[in-house]
Amino acid sequence: MTVKIFTTGGTLDKVYFDANSEYQVGDPGIVEVLHEANVAFEYEVESLMRKDSLDLTDEDRSLIRERVAAESASHILITHGTDTMIETANELTDIEGKTIVLTGSMQPARLKVSDAAFNVGAAAVAVQTLPAGVYVVMNGCVFDPRTARKNRAQQRFEVCEPGSGR
Amino acid sequence: MTVKIFTTGGTLDKVYFDANSEYQVGDPGIVEVLHEANVAFEYEVESLMRKDSLDLTDEDRSLIRERVAAESASHILITHGTDTMIETANELTDIEGKTIVLTGSMQPARLKVSDAAFNVGAAAVAVQTLPAGVYVVMNGCVFDPRTARKNRAQQRFEVCEPGSGR
Amino acid sequence: MTVKIFTTGGTLDKVYFDANSEYQVGDPGIVEVLHEANVAFEYEVESLMRKDSLDLTDEDRSLIRERVAAESASHILITHGTDTMIETANELTDIEGKTIVLTGSMQPARLKVSDAAFNVGAAAVAVQTLPAGVYVVMNGCVFDPRTARKNRAQQRFEVCEPGSGR
Amino acid sequence: MTVKIFTTGGTLDKVYFDANSEYQVGDPGIVEVLHEANVAFEYEVESLMRKDSLDLTDEDRSLIRERVAAESASHILITHGTDTMIETANELTDIEGKTIVLTGSMQPARLKVSDAAFNVGAAAVAVQTLPAGVYVVMNGCVFDPRTARKNRAQQRFEVCEPGSGR
Repeated sequence: MTVKIFTTGGTLDKVYFDANSEYQVGDPGIVEVLHEANVAFEYEVESLMRKDSLDLTDEDRSLIRERVAAESASHILITHGTDTMIETANELTDIEGKTIVLTGSMQPARLKVSDAAFNVGAAAVAVQTLPAGVYVVMNGCVFDPRTARKNRAQQRFEVCEPGSGR
Repeated sequence: MTVKIFTTGGTLDKVYFDANSEYQVGDPGIVEVLHEANVAFEYEVESLMRKDSLDLTDEDRSLIRERVAAESASHILITHGTDTMIETANELTDIEGKTIVLTGSMQPARLKVSDAAFNVGAAAVAVQTLPAGVYVVMNGCVFDPRTARKNRAQQRFEVCEPGSGR
Repeated sequence: MTVKIFTTGGTLDKVYFDANSEYQVGDPGIVEVLHEANVAFEYEVESLMRKDSLDLTDEDRSLIRERVAAESASHILITHGTDTMIETANELTDIEGKTIVLTGSMQPARLKVSDAAFNVGAAAVAVQTLPAGVYVVMNGCVFDPRTARKNRAQQRFEVCEPGSGR
Repeated sequence: MTVKIFTTGGTLDKVYFDANSEYQVGDPGIVEVLHEANVAFEYEVESLMRKDSLDLTDEDRSLIRERVAAESASHILITHGTDTMIETANELTDIEGKTIVLTGSMQPARLKVSDAAFNVGAAAVAVQTLPAGVYVVMNGCVFDPRTARKNRAQQRFEVCEPGSGR
């Protein structure tokens, strides 16, 4: 089984640019994470865009959807900013016959303390073992994007309370 | 679902002790890994022993088996040294009705470059989603302990070649 | 000898805030650096402001100058953003009888790869051993602020070429 | 000014070898530390040996002494294990006309939390600015090896109490 990995940017990929005195999206952080974990499965990484997920446009989401739908691999991992990860996931829910997992991180992979490697490890197992469908894997859990949300205050994904209107 | 975590030592927990000029097994590294990942699932951690897995005795393995069998939780994660992880896993294969996942790391969790957080993330998802059985989760893959081995030269777990006699 | 440490912000102190999807100046990074180095000298840390050095105003520099001049300790270390570190140093050059060292970093202290601890170590020795005067300690060197500049392209401080007009 | 750097091993250089389930002295850690700090001074690194300092023999110390004495550079930095750093330093005290600084670390440079980069930064400034003589730079302080000792319990170098017989 080969896992196809599409990267879109987000905090996972953020590096600090002194020249601008700010963090910006850099090379896909997942490449180094997978290398450091010395993973035993086959994968291909392709960068679709390098954006903070708050900046993703409808065109960006259409492109992601198009590429996932056209992809020959049936196990697809997408790294994505956390703020609109749920939205993108929900755009993909009618793609059939593929296990699609979205993950990302709250802290850049290049920090000493980061959730990046943990989340990628979790997503790597999820994408290989779960049945076809779309999943968000964050904070050590597998979420159904139709009922999940990011709780900013807790810095954590969670299941929506019923009737909360998200 | 509450995940019960038993720790036994291994590289994941190794810290450097200047007093002895060597690494020794310290506090369970998984505690800090789970904290940094801000995990959204419930768990309990219990330290059974603090040993390099090459030093585990038959009594140690009996204790691990006894505690896993007696545990009321049905989702059990065990952190363990990599050298004899397969052996311990194979001692647990006839325990029924529980999802039991063993993981560990090739590099201590406290190093800048380590596979520890990645492996724990992978094991956390595996233990919550896989059916009852015993699994070794390393290098981003889920292995059946009856057919897996550690390849020391590659620093990686792999499936035994048929007829290789391991 | 007690070293008085004034912190003003800058990259050294930057942490990533997921809520804003950006890095901001957080608690003084030098506190953790000194703790991790288990330093054997006495020191006091006081935070004067928390700013990117591009945002420092004339009032901020007046306050820094005032506090350094009024300080009873004669060995003073200032952590500061790198973009205007030279300017602030040059505001202090007529304060007599004190060894004043400015340092900072190009990468946040909280990154796996950072110049922060190295620079703080260098500044700690400089402030204890150099004669009275104002110094910028960056990239492993002691610079005279009257003839130094930050070379953005090289991400490094250097001595101005004579006649370069900086 | 070119700083000549001799490396001898010690904790600074320790890496974890899974194959042996232990830490061993690896490539000189100072190379990566100086690279990450993007230092602005010239230097040359030469590895003399790769040993825990408890394992250094009289022959090793003679070799170090010989190479330092014969070295044409007058600013010499030596990385060394902490347990016998003082002894080696005291073998060098009658070499004239050179500034010789010994440093090392209590924790390997490759750990997330380490004093290595801090100590190397401190030593780099000391070797460039102090007058001719032999110095031990640890824990942010410059020690005279004739009156210093390592306090193992405190994990810190300190000045001997007068009459303590060390």
